[in-house]
Amino acid sequence: MNQRRDGRPSPILVRDTANIRWLTAFDGVFDDEGAHALYVAPDRVVLHTDSRYVKACEQAARRTPIRVDDTRESHASFVARQWNGSWLHGMPGAELQIEDTITLAEYRALQKAFPTDFPMGETDGVVRRLRSVKERYEVARMKGAQSITDGAFAHIVEFMRPGMMEREIQLELDEWMLRHGAEGLAFASIVATGANAANPHAVPGVAMLEAGQCVVLDFGAKSYGYCSDMTRTVFVGEPDSRLRAAWDAVRAANEAVEAMLRPGVTGKEAHERAEAVLAEGGFAGAMGHGLGHGVGLEIHEEPVLSLRNEEPLVAGNVVTVEPGIYVAGKFGMRLEDFGVITENGFEVFTKSTHDMVVI
Amino acid sequence: MNQRRDGRPSPILVRDTANIRWLTAFDGVFDDEGAHALYVAPDRVVLHTDSRYVKACEQAARRTPIRVDDTRESHASFVARQWNGSWLHGMPGAELQIEDTITLAEYRALQKAFPTDFPMGETDGVVRRLRSVKERYEVARMKGAQSITDGAFAHIVEFMRPGMMEREIQLELDEWMLRHGAEGLAFASIVATGANAANPHAVPGVAMLEAGQCVVLDFGAKSYGYCSDMTRTVFVGEPDSRLRAAWDAVRAANEAVEAMLRPGVTGKEAHERAEAVLAEGGFAGAMGHGLGHGVGLEIHEEPVLSLRNEEPLVAGNVVTVEPGIYVAGKFGMRLEDFGVITENGFEVFTKSTHDMVVI
Repeated sequence: MNQRRDGRPSPILVRDTANIRWLTAFDGVFDDEGAHALYVAPDRVVLHTDSRYVKACEQAARRTPIRVDDTRESHASFVARQWNGSWLHGMPGAELQIEDTITLAEYRALQKAFPTDFPMGETDGVVRRLRSVKERYEVARMKGAQSITDGAFAHIVEFMRPGMMEREIQLELDEWMLRHGAEGLAFASIVATGANAANPHAVPGVAMLEAGQCVVLDFGAKSYGYCSDMTRTVFVGEPDSRLRAAWDAVRAANEAVEAMLRPGVTGKEAHERAEAVLAEGGFAGAMGHGLGHGVGLEIHEEPVLSLRNEEPLVAGNVVTVEPGIYVAGKFGMRLEDFGVITENGFEVFTKSTHDMVVI
Repeated sequence: MNQRRDGRPSPILVRDTANIRWLTAFDGVFDDEGAHALYVAPDRVVLHTDSRYVKACEQAARRTPIRVDDTRESHASFVARQWNGSWLHGMPGAELQIEDTITLAEYRALQKAFPTDFPMGETDGVVRRLRSVKERYEVARMKGAQSITDGAFAHIVEFMRPGMMEREIQLELDEWMLRHGAEGLAFASIVATGANAANPHAVPGVAMLEAGQCVVLDFGAKSYGYCSDMTRTVFVGEPDSRLRAAWDAVRAANEAVEAMLRPGVTGKEAHERAEAVLAEGGFAGAMGHGLGHGVGLEIHEEPVLSLRNEEPLVAGNVVTVEPGIYVAGKFGMRLEDFGVITENGFEVFTKSTHDMVVI
């Protein structure tokens, strides 16, 4: 339920599955299908789902005030039925809040299900903003996901050898996480060597590890619904002085930001600090992406650490810190931790070393 | 470009990534991010993308009439710029076609980018319908994806033993496909034993294979962008007479439908034939889901084989045939092939046996 400025309660229709999962805190129920709708009003909270999910939903809803409804009808007619059956029906000024991430087709269906002059308020992320402040149980799950990820890194450093292809390293990394407690991958892992690493979103392929290069590994696990996210750069053979200077700059930028993060600092300030440290190290303008992002049920959440976020961070925000240097056609490197903003600082979940790792 | 009934050409804005991939036939460019917009008009075809993808797009666009544009602006202002720069600008009756799968937020952005009375036509699947008739190269890719999937099935039958957990079988299956040419999984594999298999969308867990049960394996690979999809049911120890009768019915339903499929048959007729054969075998009403669906770049495409599809199939449709029997609390089984509608029949891609497999 959303409290409007005039004090009237506005029910909200939630269709985004990550939002629904967060609001209900149901475990082991939802998958990638956007098959569900949650109606949250002052007088009722009802989850509309279908026959495939109803048993798991009812089990999870025990001892909660959430009702489960698997009536075979569209979400639009489900919502109209909830609304028409409540005391809000006909109340002047009453308005249904909807997420603007729904599809245009679904919006048209809602328009058809309600009278033509029915007021709908379009929200651009009410629940996403709530989700940006994590509860203790969420932090615990992300620490668990990160411990799997740190374990995978220790394993892969032992596994990697010159001559291996990016793709075979990626498969080994993914399998290790899935065999050691990850319920899934947080995202498609990146293993990028040499010039490929100059692209921050490289897809692992047949390129082989060669002496003198560095390899970017960016990966994460999912555990109890929550993501982890880390990047380390591994050097193949002794790096030359330019690679060493770049690593020193990336590490200094990462550590300077981790030392400054606390409630009140803005995402913009954090990003600017990283850029300044990289510039001091001789790599001005070599990052080209935002410094970090929120993590939670989804791999990209609020808040972001970038020029476009001038809002102060608050305790409970979980963010990545991932400065990088990319030199087109030559090399790329990145060092990414993630952690939680505490009352007076930043607790890093990532336990893997910041030292140069050379194989 | 879309030809309207009055003969006027209507440009179309395509935002769905699978639609863009299909229209451009670019390989090795797109991932899961919906970061792209394709403007298709009589005078130009322009792909709007961002810096992460621009090099790969430009490479793929060589020797095609497609232009690549990585201007840093919203898709909405990109489209407005294309429109305003063309001879359609100001032409009476000219209309921009948009997909109704775009988000409401994106629709609002388009409204802002154009004059208030600007006409937009909302299409509910023009490109998806074009995609439902496959070209030869698409069929070849799906056969390749299926050959990996058949290989994985042969492997997993040797691997499976009573006492193993669903989850460890799933991991072995997935790893085999990824280690033998799959670029990814077509969807999250299902391994469901005993009563778990009575749920067609079961998530693999800690349930163990026990004698007297049967195990549903539903899985597929992705190869060069295209999906495969197969289901087999494996019996743990000699099945009792009820399981044998159910398997006979499922197999007879599958084979009856595969023998009848050809251009002109409707999805509804195919579904009804399967239901009738299952009923003859003593399992009326035990399926509870549609008989099949289209497959291509996405795992669920058009056309569907179900009561709601009364349109005749045409040569080039690629569909699954997957009759199943589910008895709540007891067991579930399913037999799924996929293949292509030919000029005079149905060519099955799946090579694995329909015989009962007992481990």
